[in-house]
Amino acid sequence: MNDEFTDDEKAGFYKAIYSRRDVRSHFTQEPINEETLTKILHAAHHAPSVGFSQPWNFILIKDMKTKQKVKESFQKEHERASKLVEDPKRSEYLSLKLEGIMESDVNVCVTYDPTKFGPFIIGTTSIPEAGIYSVCGAIQNLWLAARAENIGLGWVSIVSNDVLRKELNLPEHIVPVAYLCLGHVTNFETKPDLERSGWLPRLDLKDVIYFEKWEKKEDESWNIIKKMIESNLK
Amino acid sequence: MNDEFTDDEKAGFYKAIYSRRDVRSHFTQEPINEETLTKILHAAHHAPSVGFSQPWNFILIKDMKTKQKVKESFQKEHERASKLVEDPKRSEYLSLKLEGIMESDVNVCVTYDPTKFGPFIIGTTSIPEAGIYSVCGAIQNLWLAARAENIGLGWVSIVSNDVLRKELNLPEHIVPVAYLCLGHVTNFETKPDLERSGWLPRLDLKDVIYFEKWEKKEDESWNIIKKMIESNLK
Repeated sequence: MNDEFTDDEKAGFYKAIYSRRDVRSHFTQEPINEETLTKILHAAHHAPSVGFSQPWNFILIKDMKTKQKVKESFQKEHERASKLVEDPKRSEYLSLKLEGIMESDVNVCVTYDPTKFGPFIIGTTSIPEAGIYSVCGAIQNLWLAARAENIGLGWVSIVSNDVLRKELNLPEHIVPVAYLCLGHVTNFETKPDLERSGWLPRLDLKDVIYFEKWEKKEDESWNIIKKMIESNLK
Repeated sequence: MNDEFTDDEKAGFYKAIYSRRDVRSHFTQEPINEETLTKILHAAHHAPSVGFSQPWNFILIKDMKTKQKVKESFQKEHERASKLVEDPKRSEYLSLKLEGIMESDVNVCVTYDPTKFGPFIIGTTSIPEAGIYSVCGAIQNLWLAARAENIGLGWVSIVSNDVLRKELNLPEHIVPVAYLCLGHVTNFETKPDLERSGWLPRLDLKDVIYFEKWEKKEDESWNIIKKMIESNLK
């Protein structure tokens, strides 16, 4: 494998980055082919991990009884959350489609095991959270690979981790990090649902970049990139 | 942009997934071109985020005084960590090259701001950690985009967050998530450093997959994929 990327290779890579969506609707009944799912899981497993600890596990779920329990947990948490906000925001919140647990072919619970290869894991001695951050990297690889394989993915975080622990028999020391819904879709939206619905705007890149120190927006070593970022061209 | 990926587009995407490395050595003096760095930052900013909260900031660092302070923090934390393990593991640990803070052209501190667009952020009402998980997704996008642009990246987690807070003027509520070192490199290794050195083995995919419940390795609905995963072909 040659080190440098050709323009075509870059184009394929950036297509995954920019066309990936959090999918909650549009799931179809078509099952995910096993080869495709295996490719997606390999990509997840090849994420970086602190001290090469590979602290992730993936629980693949098709059982409708489990999905139903998770859906009920979503409904309870969603109802509870809606009470934290007032109308008209509350009605707007309740009108949003936020999960596709039952409709998606495969659900995947991604977990973190802090004991794997432990107790001495390089890179976790000052920042123990680095372990869970590695699991998130694997989730992002999984998400992008799903998009490249034309599979929609939605991350359900409106759910009780206690319900996940109970339904999936997770031991005390295992942390559920993500509950994902994967399946074929009719289409991918060009923009995130919450941007399309006007819930929140996308920030410009310049709004999230600082130079040298927190909140520093000017620095003479960074003048060229500052102008490029302000032009907002990708 | 057509929804489905061509084989060439997939190949470009998977090249980034499989050839990305955590780079600590091999940095060259060549500066990163501004256009390249802007592309990498755009890719990071287009990560998924819970409730579309985009809770990340990127502090771009070239100042050698800051780098020096972070390097000193690394040295202190590294020395402290080495005392947690006994010889021969300790000598092996101390012989590993674990950061490229001073040699890499640009350092980037990626931070999490839980107050952005808050207090009501969709998807964080049951699992508040989802905010920081989003920042990790942005870091993974950044890392993969760096690879596609032929830029090496190393994540330094052997560092004190208190030092980062002080040197970068981070307010109390801002969480430093990652300290990254980016630069041109002489080459990318084909395998992770900690695998090459024999510190830890790469797990097989089958070792991290369960079916339906924690530790369940057999399930009749999953027989086909189980065989595929066991063959360990990507």
